[in-house]
Amino acid sequence: MKIIVIGASGTIGAAVVAELSARHEVVRAGRSSGDFRVDIADPASIERLYTQVGAFDAVVCTAGKVHFGAFDQFTPEKFDIGLRDKLMGQVNLVMLGLKHIRDGGSFTLTSGLLNDDPIREGVSAAMVNGGLEGFVRGTAIVLPRGLRINVVSPTVIEESLPSYAPYFRGTKAVPASEAALGYAKSVEGAQTGRVYRIGWSRDN
Amino acid sequence: MKIIVIGASGTIGAAVVAELSARHEVVRAGRSSGDFRVDIADPASIERLYTQVGAFDAVVCTAGKVHFGAFDQFTPEKFDIGLRDKLMGQVNLVMLGLKHIRDGGSFTLTSGLLNDDPIREGVSAAMVNGGLEGFVRGTAIVLPRGLRINVVSPTVIEESLPSYAPYFRGTKAVPASEAALGYAKSVEGAQTGRVYRIGWSRDN
Repeated sequence: MKIIVIGASGTIGAAVVAELSARHEVVRAGRSSGDFRVDIADPASIERLYTQVGAFDAVVCTAGKVHFGAFDQFTPEKFDIGLRDKLMGQVNLVMLGLKHIRDGGSFTLTSGLLNDDPIREGVSAAMVNGGLEGFVRGTAIVLPRGLRINVVSPTVIEESLPSYAPYFRGTKAVPASEAALGYAKSVEGAQTGRVYRIGWSRDN
Repeated sequence: MKIIVIGASGTIGAAVVAELSARHEVVRAGRSSGDFRVDIADPASIERLYTQVGAFDAVVCTAGKVHFGAFDQFTPEKFDIGLRDKLMGQVNLVMLGLKHIRDGGSFTLTSGLLNDDPIREGVSAAMVNGGLEGFVRGTAIVLPRGLRINVVSPTVIEESLPSYAPYFRGTKAVPASEAALGYAKSVEGAQTGRVYRIGWSRDN
């Protein structure tokens, strides 16, 4: 398969590239590095990426910005960062990818545990992750041509603990290589409309 | 309690007013009718509503527009309707209401079953409903002054079947008066961060 990995130089993205490139042709894309540049918050940039890459079998997105910060400092503009980038950026990867992806291909997005297991600074992330999961379940039933869509919801990543540990006290971390398994299952398996929770389970 | 019901003339809103007005002072608000006018997609309109109403104990929102339509006809602009109105409209009701609501007060929003039980035309609704539920869980843990927040997720409403039945074949409907119970539990109970599913249960 020819698989585009967006966010390929990130902690999770690099692990996904390592996992998939043993068996597939992987195209690395990112905001500032990789085989191709893309800013997912900009639909024109997504269009350009797809035109440059040509036909492909799967897109994996491990990129997506969202504002983290104290609840009483949130403004509509701060919510907008996550809505435009992590949420609509990934939605647009799907919507604009439809005319480029081969029959039977797949889209794999990234959410995260914060909508079910929130932290103080994560109100926007909780909203965006919930939106992504709803979008994936809603879209799975209407995708044409045998296309599939799933979302991976990893817990905090071990390699990121040096920066994020203070926000996630008490949360079990997993290595990025474990999170990468969720992406491999989505791309190489046959399931659709699923949320793959990696390193945590939903308890309510 | 003094309770603002937004969307008070709608099918669910009217049932919520009927349920709560027996025991509380209810202020009706809506886009085109009620004691006060408000367009939740416009933050300035929300600010005006809160300034006019003065101190209150609870806000219930049963309003929120979202585009329904065929998946292959969706554009960023159509997604934007739901993001601005049903999603950020309700988020802004909370964020802007914080400085007007009394200690111990509550916010009760409305999502719907489509993020867990999707229909063909409901990709945007699935995204918006998921976003609202994430926001509510994320916000419940950071609200100050004993404030609470919940979201009601009703199944399709019996009174709406004349217009919506074709989209919801096989889905059990409930009367609006049953959906109204979820709002009463949220406003008059002590729970927070909850999704009250009315007439359906989540199965995955």
